[in-house]
Amino acid sequence: MHLLTRFSRGELKLNRIEAFSDGVFAIIVTLLVLELKVPVLKDHHSVAELAHALIEQLPNFLIRLISFIIVCKFWLNHSHVLGLARHADYGLVWTNSMFLMGQSFIPFPTALLGEYAGNPLAVSLFGCVFALNTMLFIALNQYIVRRLIKPELARLQDPRGFAKSFIGVASYLLGAAAAWISVHAAFVIYLFTPLFYITPPHHEPDG
Amino acid sequence: MHLLTRFSRGELKLNRIEAFSDGVFAIIVTLLVLELKVPVLKDHHSVAELAHALIEQLPNFLIRLISFIIVCKFWLNHSHVLGLARHADYGLVWTNSMFLMGQSFIPFPTALLGEYAGNPLAVSLFGCVFALNTMLFIALNQYIVRRLIKPELARLQDPRGFAKSFIGVASYLLGAAAAWISVHAAFVIYLFTPLFYITPPHHEPDG
Amino acid sequence: MHLLTRFSRGELKLNRIEAFSDGVFAIIVTLLVLELKVPVLKDHHSVAELAHALIEQLPNFLIRLISFIIVCKFWLNHSHVLGLARHADYGLVWTNSMFLMGQSFIPFPTALLGEYAGNPLAVSLFGCVFALNTMLFIALNQYIVRRLIKPELARLQDPRGFAKSFIGVASYLLGAAAAWISVHAAFVIYLFTPLFYITPPHHEPDG
Amino acid sequence: MHLLTRFSRGELKLNRIEAFSDGVFAIIVTLLVLELKVPVLKDHHSVAELAHALIEQLPNFLIRLISFIIVCKFWLNHSHVLGLARHADYGLVWTNSMFLMGQSFIPFPTALLGEYAGNPLAVSLFGCVFALNTMLFIALNQYIVRRLIKPELARLQDPRGFAKSFIGVASYLLGAAAAWISVHAAFVIYLFTPLFYITPPHHEPDG
Repeated sequence: MHLLTRFSRGELKLNRIEAFSDGVFAIIVTLLVLELKVPVLKDHHSVAELAHALIEQLPNFLIRLISFIIVCKFWLNHSHVLGLARHADYGLVWTNSMFLMGQSFIPFPTALLGEYAGNPLAVSLFGCVFALNTMLFIALNQYIVRRLIKPELARLQDPRGFAKSFIGVASYLLGAAAAWISVHAAFVIYLFTPLFYITPPHHEPDG
Repeated sequence: MHLLTRFSRGELKLNRIEAFSDGVFAIIVTLLVLELKVPVLKDHHSVAELAHALIEQLPNFLIRLISFIIVCKFWLNHSHVLGLARHADYGLVWTNSMFLMGQSFIPFPTALLGEYAGNPLAVSLFGCVFALNTMLFIALNQYIVRRLIKPELARLQDPRGFAKSFIGVASYLLGAAAAWISVHAAFVIYLFTPLFYITPPHHEPDG
Repeated sequence: MHLLTRFSRGELKLNRIEAFSDGVFAIIVTLLVLELKVPVLKDHHSVAELAHALIEQLPNFLIRLISFIIVCKFWLNHSHVLGLARHADYGLVWTNSMFLMGQSFIPFPTALLGEYAGNPLAVSLFGCVFALNTMLFIALNQYIVRRLIKPELARLQDPRGFAKSFIGVASYLLGAAAAWISVHAAFVIYLFTPLFYITPPHHEPDG
Repeated sequence: MHLLTRFSRGELKLNRIEAFSDGVFAIIVTLLVLELKVPVLKDHHSVAELAHALIEQLPNFLIRLISFIIVCKFWLNHSHVLGLARHADYGLVWTNSMFLMGQSFIPFPTALLGEYAGNPLAVSLFGCVFALNTMLFIALNQYIVRRLIKPELARLQDPRGFAKSFIGVASYLLGAAAAWISVHAAFVIYLFTPLFYITPPHHEPDG
């Protein structure tokens, strides 16, 4: 009877949503780094030519590293937030799918920025995509907190958490705007934004 | 003795089939979006040139978004239907493998349509592939409902569900036919088809 | 104390080996089909040109389909055999890793055959790689049956199973040899080999 | 109350970290081998030309095989070490993410070495990347042993294990240095380094 009730209410188990999401996250972070291309050398044995080519790839590598860290942060937040839910439902599946679509789009502006780091549009788009992803995460978080939260965890929720979570969005959009004045300023803002929310949302550390 | 019986009857655990399927789905949706290529610019710092190149990629991006949503819908249906089964057997593994093969073929007509959105054959093939995938899902659904369904869930099944599930197939084929008269009409049909069955099959919502 | 004993004996849980293997299998089957390339057309709107290009890709598609089915068959056998084990150990991890390396090599001869279907060396290599993979699976199977089998399942094992399992190896090698006389004969042999062992090893069906 | 305590202390379940890590490992090992490119032949039917092209790819294939084995060894060690932990926390997620980033970087120096096996810089970089990865693993191991180890397993830890684990780092750096004198000497050192620690850390085998 319990199983029947669960099905007729459209309740789903969380484990497959987690497995699907973990697969998507794993592919995104791995391909971020895997997409680094082997440089083409005229003289295969030349140390100087290879060193020069690798140094030229360094900014591209660093940009991918920033994206890697940000996606890992999203994974950690996703892991935390799904841990709050007592079960899944169809609304959660779709909110989560939209969030994952946003995540799987991240390698594109990352690659664009790696190629055209001096182009204000590329730098600005990078920030806009991360702002969008942060908003998609906020939507996922809100959906779970409002509808699916385990009763015993409800009182752990910080009532100002919803307002606070827009700091990340604002910071990425600030970076996206700053790109049109100075691409270097934008990079500094992007670099510091994940540090703001490196601790998970609504979590009180010990001591 | 129970384990022995299970093995001699060819019963398999569902969890590995789910893990394998989730991996395949995760790769498909991620690569759908990941395959967007960084445009080649003559002037790396030109905002106008990059903006022009990105706007040119917009239809390609939208087509990938449609495929992303449809594959997520297939994932949700797959998740629902496997939840009905009490265990797996060899027939299920093969029905599921054929279904996954159909899914992993989706990025090809998607990329084809992204490249040649004005070519009736590309537009038509897109619809045919989704009609085929819907039929493969119907086969999977029928296999589980007829042979492996948990007894307590059997009475939840809508007797008209089997007939209803062909609406999606018919709609995709209609789009595929319409492509030869107007590619725009086909796009409209493709866009609305998943909305028809955005709720899972055989599910009665609350209230 | 039980956990301590388990660790000091080098016993490992099976679930991570299964998850890792399922991930590898999922990537292999998906990329087999995903690697189909969008043809380059001179006239983007020409139905005839696109139809011609797609028909030219048909043999490549069929070869990938054969590989897809064979890898799914390996997945099914892998799933069956790991279900026999009571736990994992370091020897199993390495035997399994070698097996997975063989599997992840499959897309290479598949792509080679898709490109050069008329080249006897490409056709022959395809059979040799599948013969090698079948041998790696036999090694995995033997390792589990000899060292890690659940006691209650031991009597299910067919004593002639070990000898029987070499039929697949012999058949693939026969195809590899036949390729030097007729590539078509080799294709027929490859196509029928997985059908021989489409039922799992050592399994007695009902009725 | 227990769940509340767990959340307020920032404790996380290990299973999603394992699933995410297994996904990353699966993609890395599979793509290592999948990246082998089909050679371009002038005469599609020429056995001699294809044989020549494949033999030319052999060193590239062998280098990828070495990386495959090393990454599988890292997976085994990762699996062993996470099995020691009683739960996860935010520090573990970040230490693990840094470790996975190091792992996902492995295909790049591998591809570089496959292309430019005679270039001392490429050979040296290969060793440096593996030394770095070994250090990242040591950090992960230390984090778990110092903060998260299951009490009953604490006495299994070899007090000299920490010092011993730097042998791998030293050996890879020795190879990286040797590359500037003889690339062949470096290859020999790289080949033997994983054999040193093919048994898991801190494990006492039977008998």
